Amino acid sequence: MRATSIATVCLSGALDQKIDAIARAGFDGIELFEPDLIASYSSPEEIARRVADAGLRIDLYQPIRDVEATTPDAFARALRRAKSKFDVMRQLGVDTALLCSNVATAATDDDDVMAEQLYELAQAAADSGVRVAYEALAWGRHVSTYDHAWRIVESVDHPALGVCLDSFHILARGSDLDGIARIPGEKIFYLQLADAPRMNLDPLSWSRHHRLFPGEGDWDLVDFTGRVLDAGYSGPLSLEVFNDVFRQSQPVLTARDAWRSLARLDMQLDARTATSAPNPAVRGVSFAELQPGDVGQLELLLKMLGFARRGVHRRKDLSLWVQNEARVVVNRSLLGATTRIAAIGLDVADAEVVHRRAAALRIPRAPRDRASDEAPLDGYVAPDETIVFADGDVAGWLGEFEHPAPVEPVGITRIDHVSLVMPWQRAAEAQLFFSSLLELRRSASVDVSSDRGLMSSTALTPAAPGPGVIINVPPAPGMESMFVNHLAFTCTDIHSTLEILRARNIRTLSVPDNYYDDLLARGDLSEKAVARLRALDLLYDRDDDGEFFHAYLPAMDGVEFELVQRTHGHRGYGAVNAPVRLAALRAEASPHRYAWREGVRAAN
Amino acid sequence: MRATSIATVCLSGALDQKIDAIARAGFDGIELFEPDLIASYSSPEEIARRVADAGLRIDLYQPIRDVEATTPDAFARALRRAKSKFDVMRQLGVDTALLCSNVATAATDDDDVMAEQLYELAQAAADSGVRVAYEALAWGRHVSTYDHAWRIVESVDHPALGVCLDSFHILARGSDLDGIARIPGEKIFYLQLADAPRMNLDPLSWSRHHRLFPGEGDWDLVDFTGRVLDAGYSGPLSLEVFNDVFRQSQPVLTARDAWRSLARLDMQLDARTATSAPNPAVRGVSFAELQPGDVGQLELLLKMLGFARRGVHRRKDLSLWVQNEARVVVNRSLLGATTRIAAIGLDVADAEVVHRRAAALRIPRAPRDRASDEAPLDGYVAPDETIVFADGDVAGWLGEFEHPAPVEPVGITRIDHVSLVMPWQRAAEAQLFFSSLLELRRSASVDVSSDRGLMSSTALTPAAPGPGVIINVPPAPGMESMFVNHLAFTCTDIHSTLEILRARNIRTLSVPDNYYDDLLARGDLSEKAVARLRALDLLYDRDDDGEFFHAYLPAMDGVEFELVQRTHGHRGYGAVNAPVRLAALRAEASPHRYAWREGVRAAN
Repeated sequence: MRATSIATVCLSGALDQKIDAIARAGFDGIELFEPDLIASYSSPEEIARRVADAGLRIDLYQPIRDVEATTPDAFARALRRAKSKFDVMRQLGVDTALLCSNVATAATDDDDVMAEQLYELAQAAADSGVRVAYEALAWGRHVSTYDHAWRIVESVDHPALGVCLDSFHILARGSDLDGIARIPGEKIFYLQLADAPRMNLDPLSWSRHHRLFPGEGDWDLVDFTGRVLDAGYSGPLSLEVFNDVFRQSQPVLTARDAWRSLARLDMQLDARTATSAPNPAVRGVSFAELQPGDVGQLELLLKMLGFARRGVHRRKDLSLWVQNEARVVVNRSLLGATTRIAAIGLDVADAEVVHRRAAALRIPRAPRDRASDEAPLDGYVAPDETIVFADGDVAGWLGEFEHPAPVEPVGITRIDHVSLVMPWQRAAEAQLFFSSLLELRRSASVDVSSDRGLMSSTALTPAAPGPGVIINVPPAPGMESMFVNHLAFTCTDIHSTLEILRARNIRTLSVPDNYYDDLLARGDLSEKAVARLRALDLLYDRDDDGEFFHAYLPAMDGVEFELVQRTHGHRGYGAVNAPVRLAALRAEASPHRYAWREGVRAAN
Repeated sequence: MRATSIATVCLSGALDQKIDAIARAGFDGIELFEPDLIASYSSPEEIARRVADAGLRIDLYQPIRDVEATTPDAFARALRRAKSKFDVMRQLGVDTALLCSNVATAATDDDDVMAEQLYELAQAAADSGVRVAYEALAWGRHVSTYDHAWRIVESVDHPALGVCLDSFHILARGSDLDGIARIPGEKIFYLQLADAPRMNLDPLSWSRHHRLFPGEGDWDLVDFTGRVLDAGYSGPLSLEVFNDVFRQSQPVLTARDAWRSLARLDMQLDARTATSAPNPAVRGVSFAELQPGDVGQLELLLKMLGFARRGVHRRKDLSLWVQNEARVVVNRSLLGATTRIAAIGLDVADAEVVHRRAAALRIPRAPRDRASDEAPLDGYVAPDETIVFADGDVAGWLGEFEHPAPVEPVGITRIDHVSLVMPWQRAAEAQLFFSSLLELRRSASVDVSSDRGLMSSTALTPAAPGPGVIINVPPAPGMESMFVNHLAFTCTDIHSTLEILRARNIRTLSVPDNYYDDLLARGDLSEKAVARLRALDLLYDRDDDGEFFHAYLPAMDGVEFELVQRTHGHRGYGAVNAPVRLAALRAEASPHRYAWREGVRAAN
């Protein structure tokens, strides 16, 4: 794997904690952020020793600011300051300083003046045995593009002056990347990587609040990094990422997430040149394992939803409930106050690909109790503690369940998707977990209304139509427990499924009449079609790809069950209906309106 | 006071809760947001009855979208839908519908086509006995400015078609406001008000996430609203404000804050025409009242800081500590686990102005135990529960303290500022509290680093140089208790004050050597000046207005004490030094480094 580095500004906490976290995550080096040095009670020599003891190098000292394009007076002051920083660098044992293009004090928009001043700076650096990497900030006063910075560095032509390429500044400006190939590799002194969500925000705020690790945002960092490597850059892949989330996270978790993002980028860079890269090829959700709040009530609900008890596990206290390809494992040995989704199985073509990736990403396998004659089935712990199994052989483990019970199916065919609420601080990491381990494709996030603010919801899509896994992130940290996970089953014909359920006295959440009046006014559906939806409390959405019908069962102590039907490859999940669903959940709090619980109680 | 209204979309919760909250806050009417209707289990007639029973009107039905500039086919569908909404409006008893300019389906950039279609829509509205207010969204496809919308409405010339002016869309576009005077008042069917922080963000995201109530953002809504009223608009002042904070707030609190913002706007509109508006003229902080965690330790600290016990209250269990104009009341009858700032006094020229304003804003006076022979002194509860007294007569209440003790002053002259941590959800309300009640001027917010993310810090400035009150907002809701309030005292000569304190074995927080090495490298100060700062652990900042010196005492169980000196009218408060201060606080956790606690213990 290529050498990796990370700026200390990426992590929260004191410098010593940062160094420890970076070393433990597996990095080779750090960029030392000057304010971290200034706020440290250790001398530069002590810091250098601490870094070396942790098995790290200091790859970069950063940043030096506002040197070039200044008046002679201001330049003299800036140069004096820079020289004293070069001394500090010598004490630290670091040979490269980052110089940001002038944003504040730039007086002259004159490349020749800048070149002269940078020559003098480079000479001073060389005298101190260090070198300077010049970086164009996207909001630089006169120099804001990498090619402009390179033109100046080229004209200075001093061995102690090169460029630093930072993916954020370059991609945020939408610069043409072809110019990278024209920079000699040995003049690219440093490479900083950051990803970001696509936004229409001024680059400074965008940079300060929304940077992400590679693979967590919307940019193609494989292409970008590949171009820099192709130009002959031989230094570390280094991260400079700050955002409002990381500032609130534990440095050890952030550093681990950061390292994995580079490990994945490294894999993707290797795959550029490979003829075919191995892909786990997720086909869908093969099973969900529930930890029941009330076993009796959960199993009864499954039964009424037409699931057959396919059997009980021959060794463990598990019961398996099946309807066509929809499989729910009830783990009776896990006891909880409420029902929760303890694990999901993803149906993959090749589980070994997943396991090899996990090893490369240093994602530890979840511990599992397996007897030697049982099917191999291994999983990994997602950021919300759900175990995600790479299920390459469904038939294998199905055979471990015995004593099937009779079945009265209602037309459920498989698990459509599972929605998981991720910790606010680990939302980007969660996306990276699913994309790096399983190559699930991420769609654009949507804001979903809730009583407690906007929840950010992102679908992760396997090859099949429909989302597979949905990651929901609460509006603010600490609000995770106010939201529940849910499990959506696909029906062949949701209208007839709901009719069968009604006959069994199971009602889904009641939908307001006004909703259907509005559907009618939209004019997309006939009066008859709307009347059918209204009669069954069915929610509806459509897009260019087709239609989506869905209905919710009242919340089951912590997990919501949903029934869905999608036509013609519709890929959504009814986010537009969230306000109505919320209203329905609120109304459910008046229990006299709903027969569902009574139905279950009566059947009990 | 002018009639007030608010859109139901401003509040969280179910429609019934919103109506209750709006009525309780004192509004006259509502804008009914269509999704709130759709998610309601009540019929339009039932909703109309509920609104009337609450003493409200429905002033507006909103929004109708994407009607004009469409293909004949799409227009026919949109018209059919609009007609059915006009029926709903009749059932609701509302006569005006909001039509937003087309953002999505606009096919034709042709004002004549739009005018024809809008004429037909207006005719359909008239047939149903309602009217349509056309609003240019800032991100409208072809119509995005109010004057363009007005030109089309003018050419349609139909009595049932007018414009809706929304301050957000108009001010976000930076439109010339002179055109408002050219719209006849009776054609301005509706006025929507929202404030916003100055941002460089695309208008859609800006609108969706960052709207604020009037007076809480950066725009001049007095001027804007005045222009609309001058044009002859006679409808209600109506709020349409949504942001990520309100979505997480209790509807009753948000509605009250909203109503107050209009009450203040109403006062300001009146003041436009008055020759001189009464101003409470805050001159500074006259006292701070502390609820002690440990009375003995707190009083001992005050004594060592050179405060004299000016006396004990003749009736209540209060002690008053004074040094020049710096006054601290220790309330021994309030017991707390930690020390906290229970109240502050603001030295105002005319307390009656504050009390009259509070009455107009419906801010209730804080209950207070006062005997008939005691000085009148009344206050109001800020969103963080601190009581803010309008102190118009310091000498009055000073006379109630008796039995002074001797004094050994150290050069503290007055309270420079008080920093209060406000609840995250009520940050904007807190700014409005201080500006509307006390006319404190707000400076731009700055992001201050903390171990738990960026804290947003806003200075509220009286006439004197220096901030007066600082409002700090934690990075996320629920984090309030992780941050402490603090109390900063002004010194005539902070160097000599610190020297006296050292002689008394009281040390301020130790500052890293690297900080001074960096100060020296900056070249703003001589070696000697830096050496003096270093010897006294003094922090330093400067700007064009002058210099700022400050030092922190280790946290006193919940309140931080700071000593400051500002020269030549410097108005900052050392936010730039926050990372170093944080590091110092962290280091304080290793108690062997600090003599302060030992000093206090020894003196005990």
